[in-house]
Amino acid sequence: MKINILGAATTRFGELWETSPRALAREAMSHALKNADLKPQQVDALFVGNMLAGILGNQGNLGSFFAEELGVSVPAFHIEGACASGGLALHNAINSILAGQHKTVMVLGIEKMTDFNQEDITSGLMAAGSDEERQAGATFAGIYALMAQAYMQQYNVSEELLSSVAVKNHYHGSLNTKAQFQNIITIADVMKSTRIADPLKLLDCSPISDGASAVIISSENIGDVSNPVSITASEVATDTLALYQRESFATLSAVTRAASKAYSKANITPSDIDVAEIHDCFSIAEVIATEDLRFSKRGEGAKDIAEGKYTLGKGKIITNPSGGLKACGHPVGATGIKQIVEITEQLRGQAGSRQVKGARIGLTHNVGGSGAVAVIHILQT
Amino acid sequence: MKINILGAATTRFGELWETSPRALAREAMSHALKNADLKPQQVDALFVGNMLAGILGNQGNLGSFFAEELGVSVPAFHIEGACASGGLALHNAINSILAGQHKTVMVLGIEKMTDFNQEDITSGLMAAGSDEERQAGATFAGIYALMAQAYMQQYNVSEELLSSVAVKNHYHGSLNTKAQFQNIITIADVMKSTRIADPLKLLDCSPISDGASAVIISSENIGDVSNPVSITASEVATDTLALYQRESFATLSAVTRAASKAYSKANITPSDIDVAEIHDCFSIAEVIATEDLRFSKRGEGAKDIAEGKYTLGKGKIITNPSGGLKACGHPVGATGIKQIVEITEQLRGQAGSRQVKGARIGLTHNVGGSGAVAVIHILQT
Repeated sequence: MKINILGAATTRFGELWETSPRALAREAMSHALKNADLKPQQVDALFVGNMLAGILGNQGNLGSFFAEELGVSVPAFHIEGACASGGLALHNAINSILAGQHKTVMVLGIEKMTDFNQEDITSGLMAAGSDEERQAGATFAGIYALMAQAYMQQYNVSEELLSSVAVKNHYHGSLNTKAQFQNIITIADVMKSTRIADPLKLLDCSPISDGASAVIISSENIGDVSNPVSITASEVATDTLALYQRESFATLSAVTRAASKAYSKANITPSDIDVAEIHDCFSIAEVIATEDLRFSKRGEGAKDIAEGKYTLGKGKIITNPSGGLKACGHPVGATGIKQIVEITEQLRGQAGSRQVKGARIGLTHNVGGSGAVAVIHILQT
Repeated sequence: MKINILGAATTRFGELWETSPRALAREAMSHALKNADLKPQQVDALFVGNMLAGILGNQGNLGSFFAEELGVSVPAFHIEGACASGGLALHNAINSILAGQHKTVMVLGIEKMTDFNQEDITSGLMAAGSDEERQAGATFAGIYALMAQAYMQQYNVSEELLSSVAVKNHYHGSLNTKAQFQNIITIADVMKSTRIADPLKLLDCSPISDGASAVIISSENIGDVSNPVSITASEVATDTLALYQRESFATLSAVTRAASKAYSKANITPSDIDVAEIHDCFSIAEVIATEDLRFSKRGEGAKDIAEGKYTLGKGKIITNPSGGLKACGHPVGATGIKQIVEITEQLRGQAGSRQVKGARIGLTHNVGGSGAVAVIHILQT
């Protein structure tokens, strides 16, 4: 059975002080319906990816909550898996179609973070971590900093080289009108930005963001079928919550396992990928992902990024054309779905000034915690 | 494809001060594995139903969290839908098998509530409600009290008649060694118990509980196959979060719709059911469910319960042989899975002194919020 993406839309990402979760969801879902040329009554079920509405806003039951905004009393589900909540929601939505339970399903990723104070957000995000890490006072910046230190030592990589991730993603973000940050930055800008958790600096870190993204997937050809994109693999793997329980800090085993299965299921190799959205919550995350996804050799990810191998107009595989989590923004539950929206627009040839020419095969890489869960999707025209 | 229940187990429900969520999960999952005669390595994926770990304990990423306790890095998912989280987790687990993604899946329902103070729990539970209800200071006891008032007025039903729900369920609970309350009570006991939200009294309300329940489902016949039970329908429906937006307070539309679809999918009628676990969070909830499931005629649910039509040793359809939420306890995320464990034991003929003789077809009825989401499962030998 073929899973087609019928519609895809995202709100702007950013500090959206004047809007509510309900309004964000309405905007993303109504634009996805318009994009697909469908009515709400043609949607059989709703899957919602969200991490923090319960912890920060005391709102649960999010399936029913957002089904109200869709305006139809369909079966509705809330899937949570930290920053991978969006990708995991899509995975379960795909299963519901393959299972024969539904034909056409809306998947909403959403997060409203900026309404809360910084301390609560930092604490809330640590819900993705382990007891031990929380009790030790670790933050995710701190945890990824440990990974960066281990990686830099193991492969003799400099902070300057690491900085090239943010430089590339800000360049791509400058071409995306939906991005939270649309300014071009330099390696010098990254290097002189505030140190957050050594060696990570402010411009190595993705921001706190609001946003919602929605896709409509279906086993049927209904609505506007002029731009067919299909999902040919959806794979999930998990690992320990805590870093200290892992053999290496310089790779995420959940990513390598999920990616291997996804490549095999879609019957492609890493070099077949034209465009990928990568979970660059911190610059080191994108470097490691570039290697875990087998785009770059071990230890060469940062160098390859710095050399433009993944930059629009220069490289062969373009990573994070949306600007990634760093520049486009990271409303955690929305991120996994925004990645799908971006790849869909790329494969349809509708990505405007950030279009990857001739893109036919795309990948999304969505991670929860410091690699406790990974979701890989492969999309093809 | 047939979905078989290979293993089923539950911890004791109650105020389990000396145990942790991890220990509860380990107990439920290891006993389910033992019950199925399987090893953790034979499990392909884990689905977790939980409502409050994030809100009360700041722990998210629960798929990966509990996969650690299972001891295998399988794909893992956390499904949240208030008090229906357990049933919804099972529904998504079934879809993952029907989709061909997995063969054998563990489903864990878990909640640890008593570690937190009453105010936080009451506030946390309202995460299942609507903004308006929360802002008005409503509690779930208050919301179900409104339903009770509407129902009692519409059908001229007395408080005494309503009390018979708790009397029946405590009688059943007295036969269940896993139940939080194993004491028999009378209508007089209910009538003289503290008024919580008129007309609901303390003994009309399910308690705050800790507990974990686990089932292993599979498309394969592996492990111990001497007691086959299959899931023949798994249906979900949603409704508005808030009561005031509904046409009637005396029925839950999500239940009638999910049940209709489930009966049709399993190709049975309500009178074919031998045993059912019902979401009796408050006595009025069981009365309305008894009618929404079409066991009793409209307005006659309470009378039928009082007359023993659903009581062990007396009735034809036995409801809540476990003691239900009222007597067995209501660790919210565990409830939907405990219902499956109970029906599995009943259909296997392993329910001991609370065995429903000759039970061959069972139903579970799991509700989130005040009826914003309903999940119906039908199990058959």
